[in-house]
Amino acid sequence: MSEILSLSLDLLQRESVTPLDAGCQQRIADLLEGFTVEHLRFGEVDNLYAVHGTDGPTLLFVGHTDVVPPGDGWTSPPFAPTIRDGHLYARGAADMKVSVAAFVLAARDFVREHPNHAGRIAVLVTSDEEGIALDGVRRVARVFAERNEPLTWCITGEPSSTAQLGDLLRVGRRGSLSATLTVKGVQGHVAYPEKADNPIHRVVPALTELTARQWDEGYASFPPTSLQISNVRAGTGANNVIPGTAVIEFNLRYNPNWTAAALRAEIEALFATHRVECDWFWHESGEPFYTPEGALRSACVKVLTRFNNGTKPVESTGGGTSDARFIAPLGVECVEVGPVNATIHQVDERIALDELERLPALYGELIRELLL
Amino acid sequence: MSEILSLSLDLLQRESVTPLDAGCQQRIADLLEGFTVEHLRFGEVDNLYAVHGTDGPTLLFVGHTDVVPPGDGWTSPPFAPTIRDGHLYARGAADMKVSVAAFVLAARDFVREHPNHAGRIAVLVTSDEEGIALDGVRRVARVFAERNEPLTWCITGEPSSTAQLGDLLRVGRRGSLSATLTVKGVQGHVAYPEKADNPIHRVVPALTELTARQWDEGYASFPPTSLQISNVRAGTGANNVIPGTAVIEFNLRYNPNWTAAALRAEIEALFATHRVECDWFWHESGEPFYTPEGALRSACVKVLTRFNNGTKPVESTGGGTSDARFIAPLGVECVEVGPVNATIHQVDERIALDELERLPALYGELIRELLL
Repeated sequence: MSEILSLSLDLLQRESVTPLDAGCQQRIADLLEGFTVEHLRFGEVDNLYAVHGTDGPTLLFVGHTDVVPPGDGWTSPPFAPTIRDGHLYARGAADMKVSVAAFVLAARDFVREHPNHAGRIAVLVTSDEEGIALDGVRRVARVFAERNEPLTWCITGEPSSTAQLGDLLRVGRRGSLSATLTVKGVQGHVAYPEKADNPIHRVVPALTELTARQWDEGYASFPPTSLQISNVRAGTGANNVIPGTAVIEFNLRYNPNWTAAALRAEIEALFATHRVECDWFWHESGEPFYTPEGALRSACVKVLTRFNNGTKPVESTGGGTSDARFIAPLGVECVEVGPVNATIHQVDERIALDELERLPALYGELIRELLL
Repeated sequence: MSEILSLSLDLLQRESVTPLDAGCQQRIADLLEGFTVEHLRFGEVDNLYAVHGTDGPTLLFVGHTDVVPPGDGWTSPPFAPTIRDGHLYARGAADMKVSVAAFVLAARDFVREHPNHAGRIAVLVTSDEEGIALDGVRRVARVFAERNEPLTWCITGEPSSTAQLGDLLRVGRRGSLSATLTVKGVQGHVAYPEKADNPIHRVVPALTELTARQWDEGYASFPPTSLQISNVRAGTGANNVIPGTAVIEFNLRYNPNWTAAALRAEIEALFATHRVECDWFWHESGEPFYTPEGALRSACVKVLTRFNNGTKPVESTGGGTSDARFIAPLGVECVEVGPVNATIHQVDERIALDELERLPALYGELIRELLL
């Protein structure tokens, strides 16, 4: 059995549903001989930071040991990793214990082979990427900022490939901003509208303007910023009662044309223009990041093209959010390279065995391309 | 104890929550000596129609023996009528068992005193005015239409007075029309709006136009037609999911400028203009009615002015709906005269004892004014 398969099986049988780590990080730390290791525990969240080397550019790998809850309906138990049909089935197989195992082994092997390498190689793993993500990489990034941790490049091992390993290089992510808007009116009987103030009537003109707005036309390879209303709740259930409040929830996925603060200001001003009296609750899930052409992207494109026999990867800024959003603001070039994401968060999550076996080599090539 | 108080106590202790009559109508029928009595039971609903006289104009009294559910928090049990502080407390005291008792006694006494009176005097009582009202007066009106029942004037004993008995004469009611609108979209992830179709975004421009519209400027003494959105439900609860449907409920209270059919056509056309794909469920609670100046209104104004020592009643078309909406389309002049409505449908519903004692005399004067 290969070392990557053996390590993957060990990590995957640990029931590390967010925010639990279930011993994964200690297992990893034990492998990283010669690295300076820090266990940064905040609240219920475990974080592991390991670094080797003294100066020069730093290449940081970022990942997480936590997984989403398995849900019902698995063919084989989600925490009893099982091989069948050329795949390894387990919760976390694709997102993302195997890639954590792969970049850890690749980093260790690089240090073994080049103990006096130039630059620094580092690994950061958290147990809260899938949860509210307050005490994970977000918190560690604050520690890094305070102590001026020198970081140059960051590769997140999130499952980014679409059909085969390495066919996509993620070079940015949109930001995500959510709002819960409570519009205040005065409840009353529909027969006496003059004694009431219908919050639905008050808010719909503002919602019409909000949803009709074109926020931008995209940014580099980012799609245009998009706002979607996800929930509207108003009414008592009775058809003869004007409700006293209306609650509207919406979410923005935005590109680097915007910051969360600018969007908030713009949207609150829009509602003020319509004289809608309301309470706002905003939740910022993370600013967007974007890594323009440069040393990291060109190294990754070169390696991935060679890895896939001359087929260049798609360089994309699509998809959701990842922990790179917290590292990028430190002035670090960030990309994401990882396994095929077709089954993530689903029942019977899996990774192809040949993809698993090739992952350490892929990360190894990236390290050598950047640090040798 | 007066006969009106005794009869009121008898009716009020019967737990006749819609559609139950609990024997009220038989108690009334037993009093109407000399009347031709029909028990018209449809489904679960009891209706009593009693008439005396052979030709000439017909004066019909309309009322109901059913009451709304009592709810919790009564000072004395809702079906144990209790006198305190000069009031009689019970569910149905104001809406409307006491007025039924009063016009029944007034009609009986009139026939006793004038056995060969001109015209006809009639009483119609249902046990489904507070419910869905399909098998009550609506159904009886169809029977009347089929047999060409000759009716001229109709007085509904609904609680219409505001501060003291007879201070308001209701000469019309608005119509009521409700809609439940299901807007169809395509569910999806907020991060991929191009793969979804947000029904909230589709519908808000139409709702903005709908709620901004001025339907008319009123009709005679009617207030303007009014539309109120009462309920909006959309969303899965999750903030990252674009919902597949949105459900909107609204209600119109409309004056005789409109019919339900005209409103439906107008509103469906508005949504079609906005290209909103939706399913409609319409519920017509009743067309409006309006009784212009004429024999009935002038007789009522004369009697009520005398009854209140020279103070004229307000002639109003405000408020909700009543069973007069089903009688008016038969070509009958309709008004509503009844007790003070301050506590109807509330906990501790009550009627002032002096109001109770004066009600039979008021209805008696109306009968004499119209039929003698």
